[in-house]
Formats: sequence, structure tokens, C-alpha cells
Amino acid sequence: MSFSTVSFLSDYGLVDEFAGVVKAVIGAIAPGTTVVDITHQVPAHDVRAGGLTLARSIQYLLPGVVLGVVDPGVGSSRRAIAVEVGTDPAGNGDGVGEGIGVSVLVGPDNGLLAPAAAIAGGARRAVSLTNTDYHLDAPGQTFAGRDIFGPVAAHLCLGVDLAELGEEIDPLSLIPGIIPLSRQEDDRVEAEVLWIDRFGNVQLNVDPSEIAEMGDRVLVSRGETTRAAVRVASYADLAAGQVGLVVDSYGLLAVALNRRSAAEELHLAPGDGVSLAMAAE
Amino acid sequence: MSFSTVSFLSDYGLVDEFAGVVKAVIGAIAPGTTVVDITHQVPAHDVRAGGLTLARSIQYLLPGVVLGVVDPGVGSSRRAIAVEVGTDPAGNGDGVGEGIGVSVLVGPDNGLLAPAAAIAGGARRAVSLTNTDYHLDAPGQTFAGRDIFGPVAAHLCLGVDLAELGEEIDPLSLIPGIIPLSRQEDDRVEAEVLWIDRFGNVQLNVDPSEIAEMGDRVLVSRGETTRAAVRVASYADLAAGQVGLVVDSYGLLAVALNRRSAAEELHLAPGDGVSLAMAAE
Amino acid sequence: MSFSTVSFLSDYGLVDEFAGVVKAVIGAIAPGTTVVDITHQVPAHDVRAGGLTLARSIQYLLPGVVLGVVDPGVGSSRRAIAVEVGTDPAGNGDGVGEGIGVSVLVGPDNGLLAPAAAIAGGARRAVSLTNTDYHLDAPGQTFAGRDIFGPVAAHLCLGVDLAELGEEIDPLSLIPGIIPLSRQEDDRVEAEVLWIDRFGNVQLNVDPSEIAEMGDRVLVSRGETTRAAVRVASYADLAAGQVGLVVDSYGLLAVALNRRSAAEELHLAPGDGVSLAMAAE
Repeated sequence: MSFSTVSFLSDYGLVDEFAGVVKAVIGAIAPGTTVVDITHQVPAHDVRAGGLTLARSIQYLLPGVVLGVVDPGVGSSRRAIAVEVGTDPAGNGDGVGEGIGVSVLVGPDNGLLAPAAAIAGGARRAVSLTNTDYHLDAPGQTFAGRDIFGPVAAHLCLGVDLAELGEEIDPLSLIPGIIPLSRQEDDRVEAEVLWIDRFGNVQLNVDPSEIAEMGDRVLVSRGETTRAAVRVASYADLAAGQVGLVVDSYGLLAVALNRRSAAEELHLAPGDGVSLAMAAE
Repeated sequence: MSFSTVSFLSDYGLVDEFAGVVKAVIGAIAPGTTVVDITHQVPAHDVRAGGLTLARSIQYLLPGVVLGVVDPGVGSSRRAIAVEVGTDPAGNGDGVGEGIGVSVLVGPDNGLLAPAAAIAGGARRAVSLTNTDYHLDAPGQTFAGRDIFGPVAAHLCLGVDLAELGEEIDPLSLIPGIIPLSRQEDDRVEAEVLWIDRFGNVQLNVDPSEIAEMGDRVLVSRGETTRAAVRVASYADLAAGQVGLVVDSYGLLAVALNRRSAAEELHLAPGDGVSLAMAAE
Repeated sequence: MSFSTVSFLSDYGLVDEFAGVVKAVIGAIAPGTTVVDITHQVPAHDVRAGGLTLARSIQYLLPGVVLGVVDPGVGSSRRAIAVEVGTDPAGNGDGVGEGIGVSVLVGPDNGLLAPAAAIAGGARRAVSLTNTDYHLDAPGQTFAGRDIFGPVAAHLCLGVDLAELGEEIDPLSLIPGIIPLSRQEDDRVEAEVLWIDRFGNVQLNVDPSEIAEMGDRVLVSRGETTRAAVRVASYADLAAGQVGLVVDSYGLLAVALNRRSAAEELHLAPGDGVSLAMAAE
């Protein structure tokens, strides 16, 4: 089993050379590998945001190697891991099994990879990356993307088996990710803001089915402030200044305005709590 | 006719995973395709800026597929289109004809692609992307780059003909792009700022031939403020603080300073009107 | 001798189309070439910062073509150059010699490439890029990345020899780069801030051996302000708010905090002077 693509997410930013050097290292070890940058602008050290981004993206990244590096504990005792997900264990070469091929997630064991692994069906196998034969020598311990994770991702592309990369560990021992769940309370849904995108759309952890009874107008409350939102299919269906609820591209509800930032309009940030309730007739 | 390269411009930004996921989708459908990021930092919803950027770039992107996504009307009734430009209609495989090979522009029908199509010689054929066999299933309608445009670009690379992608439409029915024209008034040229680049250089919609009579010193006016600019060939020819007019890399006049921002110095922004006039002897 | 990879650093930013167009040009001349973006967000015109970034990265970029464009003198009399570095002069095809294969650095002769060339063992050959057969025609002289450096990098990938690209010049005539050296004064080390990374870590031009006598606690002074820093192996070894000195990923000392910006905490910027001294028992 080998791979031709590494999907790469990090909090390295694009000003320093970090992401570029990791890609150069991957290319040197496994020439011809395609590296797809998912984003390198996860907020610094924000494991939650990185984990949610990987979770949103993962179904489009498989089969392949997924390299995630948001790693405030770099160089400490936190484990470096590779996690196999997906089906097709026989490795029959078609790369697919029940819709998702076998793939490997590589990164620190701090919860970053866990939400994506869960969405991909859960970890089948996991190893701690203790075999330094597959790492680069380095003067310091602060750049594991270049010295450990990148080289391991490249060797996985070349066909190195997980078992070669280090000692097998119990998938149940991995640090879990945090995916906040919404909850029904009386006639309200208590939700949380998962993500604000570039356009200011506010993704909530709410499936449309959870508010199916509420009809076309829904009250969106944050603390003392309440706004009425109308259910629409696209941003352009909203009049100027009108607050809407759309089913976003990941199938979750998002608060949105037409060509304006809903996050600014409603003063919402990731992690904020939001209540949804039916509007009076 | 197939393509090996997709040039990709959008207003997705580089913080969210949007551009990365589109590239992953293209790679999954058409493995080995090279995706060249032109920019993903077109200002949000700014069709004019995106259209001008594509127009500046287009001659360097052909032959190939050009994917442009600045799409405030995503999910609404605006059409999704593919537009064939260039010559070599016989598809003889050499990829060139009268200087530009046949290429396909893919994106929303909102004027974004029109300036580039015009520069590439005009639309030869156009289709509305109504054949959902070439799209991805998606829970919402807000991410056409991932679900429609990216998959279509990938299938074009694989050799799918335009006619397979949807119903043919009249190229004359496409939404036109807006390219502001300069005009001669008395002894002045009334111009408009097209673009401010990272270095603060101010591109005007003025060909050097339009001010050929004005000599080496030209008055640049914005409202009540007038500055004298000297014609030079390169930024380094300017003394510290001196305002210059250079022929920029696209053959248009740009107001510039040496190692400083002309846009800041002259308080200019895209869309601003500027007058050029001959300086007194 | 040909190359499959161009590593590309510039101050073009990622908002304008500059970097994308250069990559399109490289791909058109040398299809299949992998372009690795090191960074395009070197501060505008900052040759020192670009040179240090290339110097940090260079060992991971070889063998290959390295394209560096931070070029405030574009279009002026400053030379455009290609510089051959590394060993394996016989070109026996294995791409390595004493650890580094032959590589070529391409860019302006303004000191940008010099620190990297020095780290790669020094310039073996150099040419001034005077042969316009390998350039693109262009209306203006302001975009040498697209019109000169990018095309030359692509032709080098195709196997064009340095001698074809222009007249040979004496490597000793190249503009040198500036790498500030630390110095021992009494019992202090007078250092300079080389780089602040995204996380606020402050890289100094000091090798750990220079403070080997100082023990585990070191006084870090900037002007009148002194902070005690503790020597640690990783950021996570630091208590909240504690200032540390780590050996960074390039083997130099860096002032750091755990999950906070040392640059903000100590008010340090690139180029600032810093003193290191032993703490009293």
C-alpha cells in the first residue's frame, strides 16, 4: 500500500518557511508526491480549530496521507503518532472500501487528528513514531514537522508499513478530540459556534433535522441579544441586512448574511454559545 | 483535447480549507493534474478585482483550464459556466494556434471570467454546467468550487468535451465584465486606478501611447491634489520621495515610488479617478 | 544535469498574482517541474530577511534550483545572476557529492542569495543572465521574476547549462550577504535578533557553545531591561510566563515562552541587539 498524495494542515503560517521546508523534505524523500495544502493558517497552537478543520475536510482527502501539525507540545513527552483509518484492509489496490480507502493520519497525539479519524470510521491501527530511522537528524527538538512528521508521511507514500514506524499502541489510548454537541432544552436548541469562515458565516454544531419543527423563522440568541433568522437555501436569497440560516457545505446550519459578515453583525466568535428557538407566529 | 494544468483564482482566502479542498477534489478526479494557485486572496465578493486579476494573468495561463471562483451569488439562479477560448479549433494536439491554444475558463456567470475571455480572443463556445453527472453530491449549495466548478475543471483535464457538461448557451448571453476605459478630455487623460499591488504601485487604465505628447514630466491629480511625476523605466531610477510613472509589467502606466508605497503617498485606492496632464515647462 | 524541483522564495506576497504567474511560466517552459513555495511573504524589499530565510532553508532544498526574488532594484543596473553551488562537478548523475548535490541559485545580485550560497559551500560558478533568448519579452521592466528569473529557472530544469545563460562572472564579484556575527565581550555575548517566527520565538545569532559556561540560567538584556531565561529543550518545559532559551530547529539559540510570544513579551524585533550573561548564583 502506497500513496501519491499528502494533504497538509498546520499552524505554521505562510510567512515563515516552515511549511515550504516540510514540503521540500517530503519531495526529497518521496519524489513525485503531490502535497495539497489544506491550510497553514490554523490559529497558533489552536488544536480545536485544527481538529475541526480536518474533520470538515477529511472525506475529500481520502485515500491518502493526511499530515496535521498543530503541536504546542513539540519536543515534550506528547507522542508523535500515525493512525490508520478506513476500510479495505486487504490492500487489494483499488484504494476503496465501503466508500473510503485506507488512509493514514500523521501528527501529534494531542486530539488534533481524533475528530477526523472518527469521521473516517475510527482508528484501525496506531503507532507511536519511535523508530528514528525514519526521522531526520536535527540540532533542536522544535520542528517535528520537518524532522519527524514530514519524513514519516513521505515514507508512508513510498509504501513503508505503519508497523515499521514505531511501536504499536492501542487506538483507545489516543487523546480524544473535542467535538461539542448541541442539546435540546425545552423548545430550544443550545448550540455552539464551531467556525467563522472568511465571509463571516457562522457554522453551528446543529444538524438541520434538529430544528425541523421550528419552521421558516428561527430566533438566534446570544446572551441578551436575539435576532430573527429566516431559513434560506443560499446567501443570495437574503435581502440586504437580513439574517439567515443556511445549510452549509458540510450539512450543518450556519448563520449568514448576504455579502456581509454574520459574525460581525451578531458579534459571534468560535466557541460562543447560541440558542435557537421557534419564532412566535 | 485534454489539459494538464488548472490555474485557480478565488476569494476563498488561505485561512479556511476551501482552496485546499477544491484542489484535493481535482486531484482525486484527475490524478497528476498540476494546480497553479494564481491567488485566493481576491477581496471577498469582489468580482471586479478578480476579473482584472484574471485579465492580467491570462496570457501566461494558456493553454489550460482556468478556474475562477468569486461567487457571491452561489446557489442562486446565476449560471455556472464553462467558456472555451483561443484558437486551434481542430484540436490537432499541438496546443497552439495563432499564439494561444484552446483553453477553457470555468466559474460563475457574473462577469468574473469575461475580461480574461475577451483578452484571449473572445468566447468560442459556452455551456451552462447543468449536467450534474460531473458534479459532487453535497448537503448544501454554498460551496460550488468544491461541488461543481472544481469537478468540472478536473473532468475537462481528463478530456471531457464542453458539450458533455451542460446545455450550450450563446456566448453573447454571458454577463459582461467591466473594464473601465480612460478618456481624453481637452489636454488631460481621465484615468481610473485598476489595481494597487503589494508594493503600493498604482496601476492606471492608461496605455503609454495616450500620454506620449506629455513629455517626461506629467501632473497626476486626484481631486484637489496634484503631484508631478517623472517618467522612468524602473523604480530604482527614482530619487527618494520622487513620484514616478513607469510602464508596468502588463504594459500599462503605474504611479510608483522607489521602495515606498505610491498608493499611501497619494492616497489612492482601486476605482479612484485620476487625471494626467502635461506639466508646464 | 537537469532538475525536477524549483524552490521559490519572494517578497511578492500572496494577494497579487505575481507568484502564481511565475509558477505558470515555469510550468509552461518545463512541464512537470515541481515548484515548492518556501515563502512569498518576505517583508517587501527586505533583502536581509529573505537572505536569512534562504540560509536557514537551503540544506533542505538541495539538489535543485533555488529561485529567490527580493528585488527592489528590478530593472536597474543590478545584475541578474545564476550561481552554481555544491559538489559533484563531474555531474555523474547521482545528484550528491559530499552531502550536497550541485544546485543553482537564481535571483538578483543584491546579497539575497549570498548567505545560502555560503552555507552550500560557496559559489563554484556564476553567470550574469545576459542571454535574452532565455527570457520572456515584456512591455515593462518591473517583473523580472516572470520575465527573467522564472524562465531561467525553468530552462535550468530542462538541462540548459549555466554557460548558455549569459556571460560568466567572477564569483568574488557578487554582492555579499550580511550575516551578523555575535561577539564575546568580557563575560557577555553581544548578540543580534535574526528572526521572529509566527509563534514569537526570537532566534539569536548565537551557537549554544558560546554560552556553554553560563549554566542553566542566563540573563537576557535589551537596553535597560533584563530578564532571566532558563535553558530548556522544548517550549513545553517552560512554566506559564517563564522565559526560556531553547536550541531551535536550526541549531541556534532562541528566546521563547510556552504558548506565548517571546518577541512581544520582551519587545524584540529583527535586528535588535541583545546581551547574554551568566546569572548570579
